[in-house]
Amino acid sequence: MRIFGIDPGSERTGYGCIDSDGSRCELVACGAITVPSGCPFPDRLVRIFDALASLLATHRPASVAVEEVFHGRNARSALKLGQARGVALLAAARAGLPVAEYAAATVKQAVVGYGRADKQQVQRMVALLLGLDAPPSPHDVSDALAVAVCHAYAGPAAAPSGSAEDGNAGVRTWRRFRVPG
Amino acid sequence: MRIFGIDPGSERTGYGCIDSDGSRCELVACGAITVPSGCPFPDRLVRIFDALASLLATHRPASVAVEEVFHGRNARSALKLGQARGVALLAAARAGLPVAEYAAATVKQAVVGYGRADKQQVQRMVALLLGLDAPPSPHDVSDALAVAVCHAYAGPAAAPSGSAEDGNAGVRTWRRFRVPG
Repeated sequence: MRIFGIDPGSERTGYGCIDSDGSRCELVACGAITVPSGCPFPDRLVRIFDALASLLATHRPASVAVEEVFHGRNARSALKLGQARGVALLAAARAGLPVAEYAAATVKQAVVGYGRADKQQVQRMVALLLGLDAPPSPHDVSDALAVAVCHAYAGPAAAPSGSAEDGNAGVRTWRRFRVPG
Repeated sequence: MRIFGIDPGSERTGYGCIDSDGSRCELVACGAITVPSGCPFPDRLVRIFDALASLLATHRPASVAVEEVFHGRNARSALKLGQARGVALLAAARAGLPVAEYAAATVKQAVVGYGRADKQQVQRMVALLLGLDAPPSPHDVSDALAVAVCHAYAGPAAAPSGSAEDGNAGVRTWRRFRVPG
């Protein structure tokens, strides 16, 4: 199964694509979509959307995984992040891909084995699990790979469950998965 | 000048399109994009984006106006709203339209003459200014029309200012305008 993880952000959006048989994972591609700091905000969203749409068309994953983001943010930063996140979810849904969402603690638990692991621990474990020479950086990239690995470990229970209630075949799944702790 | 106002929301997105010479305003079209409550979240975003893209292609406005939204929200609702808002901004930017953003108090000041007006006052004044038989409802529709009227009143100072710094001609303007109180 090919999985595409996204860590959305208005300044930098990390992505990580992996192949997995449910236990072993292999890196396909990863990187960060960055936008020049002087770029008008709606134009940032266009660049993020177009870059993700292009990457999804190139790598043709079976599903997309993103991290839930609620905690420790104020309303202003949550709104800003939400705008980038909405565009990332739109790119996935328009590509006809199911989207799985995981709590940050679930991702850390799956990757590091400890739900309160720090960013460096996540980076090191992502490198180890994917057999990389060095931890992927910046954090946005390792976080995108981590949520993809988490989705791979979630296994068949997290497989797309068919059509959405509204019968739109192009946009299939939106479920919150939990990896058994 | 034709202006397209948007009041984005994940459950209901209001829109209102007007023609204006800077003082008088005339209704072109208004309405609300609603999504069935059981619809998966990424699919909601697709529907909002597709509907707005279609409306912008139909009505061909010169610019888009949206309200700033920061106050009185918790991080969770701000994130949710942000996702719908990001998709609305993307639809405008992908249509090559400049986007103007106004603080809620600025919109109320411009439409009602009082920055702390309530929703009913905004509805009634929008109806009066546009010569409508009845106040547009729900609130999302009158709010979208109100921000369009506010942009019309902001006048030449709020006109698109040319290309963005990055030279992308398709996405031109992102400025915060203030109507002289």
